[in-house]
Amino acid sequence: MRNPHSNGEATGENGFGDGVILGLDGGATSTVCVCVPYFSFGDRFPDPLPILGRAVAGCTNRNSVGETAARDSLEQVVSEALAQSGSDKSDVRGVCLGVSGVNHPSDQEKIENWIRDMFPSHVKVYVQNDAIVALASGTMGKLHGCVLIAGTGCIAYGFGEDGKEARASGGGPILGDWGSGYGISAQALTAVIRAHDGRGPETLLTSTILKALGLSSPDELIGWTYADPSWARIAALVPHVVSCAEAGDKISDKILVDAADDLALSVKAVVQRLGLCGEDGTASFPVVMVGGVLNANRKWDTGKEVSNRIIRYFPGAQTIIPKV
Amino acid sequence: MRNPHSNGEATGENGFGDGVILGLDGGATSTVCVCVPYFSFGDRFPDPLPILGRAVAGCTNRNSVGETAARDSLEQVVSEALAQSGSDKSDVRGVCLGVSGVNHPSDQEKIENWIRDMFPSHVKVYVQNDAIVALASGTMGKLHGCVLIAGTGCIAYGFGEDGKEARASGGGPILGDWGSGYGISAQALTAVIRAHDGRGPETLLTSTILKALGLSSPDELIGWTYADPSWARIAALVPHVVSCAEAGDKISDKILVDAADDLALSVKAVVQRLGLCGEDGTASFPVVMVGGVLNANRKWDTGKEVSNRIIRYFPGAQTIIPKV
Repeated sequence: MRNPHSNGEATGENGFGDGVILGLDGGATSTVCVCVPYFSFGDRFPDPLPILGRAVAGCTNRNSVGETAARDSLEQVVSEALAQSGSDKSDVRGVCLGVSGVNHPSDQEKIENWIRDMFPSHVKVYVQNDAIVALASGTMGKLHGCVLIAGTGCIAYGFGEDGKEARASGGGPILGDWGSGYGISAQALTAVIRAHDGRGPETLLTSTILKALGLSSPDELIGWTYADPSWARIAALVPHVVSCAEAGDKISDKILVDAADDLALSVKAVVQRLGLCGEDGTASFPVVMVGGVLNANRKWDTGKEVSNRIIRYFPGAQTIIPKV
Repeated sequence: MRNPHSNGEATGENGFGDGVILGLDGGATSTVCVCVPYFSFGDRFPDPLPILGRAVAGCTNRNSVGETAARDSLEQVVSEALAQSGSDKSDVRGVCLGVSGVNHPSDQEKIENWIRDMFPSHVKVYVQNDAIVALASGTMGKLHGCVLIAGTGCIAYGFGEDGKEARASGGGPILGDWGSGYGISAQALTAVIRAHDGRGPETLLTSTILKALGLSSPDELIGWTYADPSWARIAALVPHVVSCAEAGDKISDKILVDAADDLALSVKAVVQRLGLCGEDGTASFPVVMVGGVLNANRKWDTGKEVSNRIIRYFPGAQTIIPKV
């Protein structure tokens, strides 16, 4: 096979005759696929790396949108990125896929198999949970420490010096990810329903959420909630919960405090299982925290709240919220 | 039109020439349709009423199984019951539908419209929430008092002497029906995940639920949970939670205590809004309690726990658990 990159040249239809690599990043809301030229190990990489094609599709987490929709999104985004780059499937040398959500081996395997079905058998496929990608990006590539992701879903992931790994949360909305964007929003919706039917106290969330969704009564929230089962749609209500908390609403405040407790507890569980904090509990280790829930707001800063709790547990923890 | 029943005679292909009535009962797990002969008002009803056809299909709650599946189940069960009775759609004079689940007017309307689409416009359609059917059956037809249903879902419904109505709970799993069978089971699954990843204490639920589902690790629960989104499948784990509580498991006990609190709170909210307990809070009124969650078990009797709480709130409450 030709390898024009070994002498720094580019040839072929797309200008990179030695084939392409696809990078896929699958989040709960969307999936991004970029197509970059293939370089042999040892080649000098151009900086910046030329992006030959880029496409965006819907969610590829099968636990959220179902197997068929997840697979369709994957097929679509790959085809579009390839078409943009002027390549086709036969040009693909490898696929690197970062996936969000549930990290059970059988999930990874499923996605890996979908990709393998799409390409000839010689194409190399790498699947990695996005938590791992986030940790590596926050620690300059070193896989040691803990990463907490709190977006639509949430997960805490840890890596010990000895190569051991541990995870906490990440079970999705039915299995108690209360610190996730989905969890926060579901509790806010529940608080509105409870205030409406007399089981709970009044809350500013009622008028705020109804207005945001263009609904006239809390009864209509039920139809709204079940009309579309995608998790990201519900999680998108988080900013309203934050704004209510900032306006002094006690119910919203409690939901966010509970979420911060839950997220910090997930980190604590991972750190303890891996012994990242050392025998006396004071060893230094990084905790990279990413995701929309952890973003700073005007007054309520969930990232800071979680960080404070983690440092209370482990004085040696170095919490890092990467600037995006 | 012929009306052979006015003289007690039956004619026509199915032996009841004046047409048929369909009775539909839609629960979270299944939908039953019976086909009975039509009798004019004033006719003497034969006792027992002859059942011309009976069919069972899947769930018709669109919030649980989605709109297409719910509608398909409805079509299927109607066709089968009619076929069994030797009738066809043109024989149908009226349809009485008792539906479970979310009771917002738009839900009722949707189902009513489905049925109307199935039949010619002269066919009378009555849609009623199953809570109302349950109260009437527990109070010998009188619509006064409160009904609590706790099966796969849960809902409390109340009717005042003045014709006023109120509801609490019934918002489904995302909107905090924690006293429902689904709510109880989801918390049990969450407890297993939390014990597994180090966020929560060990519980007997782990070995019990894994064994019941034929799984080898709590990690596999994630895939199991999201493989099939129907609520009834998750709610079916309730007996395992009860057996663990009966065996002394503290986590299971707490889940069931919380569920009993939540169910009693739903009744309390309805009673207070309607003033069923009178001004001094001691007036007598019936509370009919139905559904699988409230069934007595060996030691743990959720129905009795809920009943005790209701009577603690309202000494005049007459709790009734109809024998099925």
